[in-house]
Amino acid sequence: MAPEPLNTQVSDVALYTPGDPLVFTRGGHLDQVSVHYETYGTLNRKKNNAIFICHALTGDAHCAGLAEGDRKPGWWDVLIGPGKPIDTDRFFIISPNILGGCQGTTGPSSTNPATGRSYGLDFPILDMKDFVTVHRRLVSSLGIENLLAVAGGSLGGMQVLQWALTHPEDMSNAIIIAASSRLTAQNIAFSAVAREAIMRDDGFSGGHYREDKTSPDTGMSIARMMAHITYMSEGALGTKFGREPQNVDLTPGFGVDFAIESYLHHQAEVFLDRFDALSYLYLSRVMDYFDPFDDTEACARIAAHPIPALVCSFSTDWRFSSAQSKRIVAYLERAGVPVTYRDISAGVGHDSFLLPIPEYEDLVRTFLNRAMEEVPR
Amino acid sequence: MAPEPLNTQVSDVALYTPGDPLVFTRGGHLDQVSVHYETYGTLNRKKNNAIFICHALTGDAHCAGLAEGDRKPGWWDVLIGPGKPIDTDRFFIISPNILGGCQGTTGPSSTNPATGRSYGLDFPILDMKDFVTVHRRLVSSLGIENLLAVAGGSLGGMQVLQWALTHPEDMSNAIIIAASSRLTAQNIAFSAVAREAIMRDDGFSGGHYREDKTSPDTGMSIARMMAHITYMSEGALGTKFGREPQNVDLTPGFGVDFAIESYLHHQAEVFLDRFDALSYLYLSRVMDYFDPFDDTEACARIAAHPIPALVCSFSTDWRFSSAQSKRIVAYLERAGVPVTYRDISAGVGHDSFLLPIPEYEDLVRTFLNRAMEEVPR
Repeated sequence: MAPEPLNTQVSDVALYTPGDPLVFTRGGHLDQVSVHYETYGTLNRKKNNAIFICHALTGDAHCAGLAEGDRKPGWWDVLIGPGKPIDTDRFFIISPNILGGCQGTTGPSSTNPATGRSYGLDFPILDMKDFVTVHRRLVSSLGIENLLAVAGGSLGGMQVLQWALTHPEDMSNAIIIAASSRLTAQNIAFSAVAREAIMRDDGFSGGHYREDKTSPDTGMSIARMMAHITYMSEGALGTKFGREPQNVDLTPGFGVDFAIESYLHHQAEVFLDRFDALSYLYLSRVMDYFDPFDDTEACARIAAHPIPALVCSFSTDWRFSSAQSKRIVAYLERAGVPVTYRDISAGVGHDSFLLPIPEYEDLVRTFLNRAMEEVPR
Repeated sequence: MAPEPLNTQVSDVALYTPGDPLVFTRGGHLDQVSVHYETYGTLNRKKNNAIFICHALTGDAHCAGLAEGDRKPGWWDVLIGPGKPIDTDRFFIISPNILGGCQGTTGPSSTNPATGRSYGLDFPILDMKDFVTVHRRLVSSLGIENLLAVAGGSLGGMQVLQWALTHPEDMSNAIIIAASSRLTAQNIAFSAVAREAIMRDDGFSGGHYREDKTSPDTGMSIARMMAHITYMSEGALGTKFGREPQNVDLTPGFGVDFAIESYLHHQAEVFLDRFDALSYLYLSRVMDYFDPFDDTEACARIAAHPIPALVCSFSTDWRFSSAQSKRIVAYLERAGVPVTYRDISAGVGHDSFLLPIPEYEDLVRTFLNRAMEEVPR
């Protein structure tokens, strides 16, 4: 193995106790929350070079570097690493799996200590603010008082936005990529159908598939395939797959006739191995209800503490369109926040935020260079 | 009941025999095909006022007028009726349920006389040309040699296009609405996921749900809900539903929280009562393979007999976008066909072709007025 250039540390931390439980915004509490997270780079002496990363719906704590045995690097490896825009030689990166997730942090499929069974649908309904609550506790546990930046794409960007609105004093900069401050009816509709597919699968077993040794594989496959179509632009699917048949000497039927069908099947299979049905329900639903600019108090807070924000959209993204990023920009500017906004024409749709696009990389790099220059030495 | 102003006739006709079977383009044959169809208006003495209607994926023979007991009129009632653009006082309308359908015409859920069971997945794979073959036989059985026009939207428009290309001598005009001459990878992908949802539902029972007394209700519901999202523009869903909650005092959860969710559930329920899973598979797959301009022989035939065509798209349609109609226009014009093309800005997405839109109605009316004037008296 090559030497580890990112100084990767993988950790788990228990953050709440029965005497100091996590209280959920929409009701309910947990006496025990374990957070799984990775860090890269080194925290400097002044503890002012930390960047917090928030992941998307199906992301995880592993956002950069190639872990042992993995075929693919972390999900934001194009941005995070030595010499990259989020430079691990300069910054200290904190990247947790989010509350409600399934990659090490407590979520609905975790064991409920009160019953010995998984929480299932008894897990409290999530609000974007609950992620912020746990993220803040994690940062605090690391002895960091101020983050140089909080950054994320898609659902990750929404977490950044919520955090920036309710606790702008926690960070010096916010980086919000391919996000939305209010889902459209179409957005909600796609997620609703995905959840229906999962919940109506007999294998879902009312949320106790772990105990019942079943698995909502069909529902999860359908949800993932459908979602994946919405993560790519029509043009990108056309360029990548077009109408190519999957095999040369194909007999038309109802199998995998076209290359695009094979691709979707592959996406579904990989997904089953790495994601949890209950997490899909909880993490997608939190987006449907997200509408932070509706909270005038939060808007007042960032107006009193207007940290610089970078907002970036991709013109090919039709899941969270440029119009949705422009809405974020408009509200932030109304609150007096200095916003750097770019709508990048390159890209393949919503998933562009995960891909190497020079204009995108330059944008983040330049924003963070300026951010670091403004830090008191 | 009000007197029947459309002169509606509902009929069934047996069109093939063991000695004269229906031979399918992609292999296979049927000794017996029953076609269910409706007619409106009156065929004139010269038999030159007939307009043939081709329906879309989930359409049926009942395209105009309010049948007894129905809550809603036929699917193209905005265009077809007395004084309407396709004027039943002037024209004789023929509207069949298509081959492979489930509303009276032989399809995969019909009984295979050889086995006494439904055909299931033994039904031959369909090609757009097979619809044309059966449509031509139906027209012939009615003693009509030339149709004033053949008209249809979506899959219906594709049938018109196929027919116009391979047998332009059958018709004086072609009306092709919201169609495509070649599905994109995105189009294929959405249909593929819908079929997966149906086929992976245990109730599908390998296509013999009728005999096994099961029903792929979950798969069909998911397929319909997803498809319905693609039939509407993002803007139309936003205007119609926005983020309205379904109930005022709602506790957030995984049920029907938003109005858009309630709407999709309703669409799914209605669909289960009226459509068949195997028909969904067969009729959607035929579109994936449709690529008629790839057939140079067919293009030569319409070039030798360039009948006028009306092509109409809706700028809000993202399922079969304006670009797809423009491709049809370009190929038809290259073949020397005089094309009237309009991209209508109004509308709600793909489903616009079913809705009252003055510009759309005027377009069809004016085209048919001209068509009727050109008919030899």
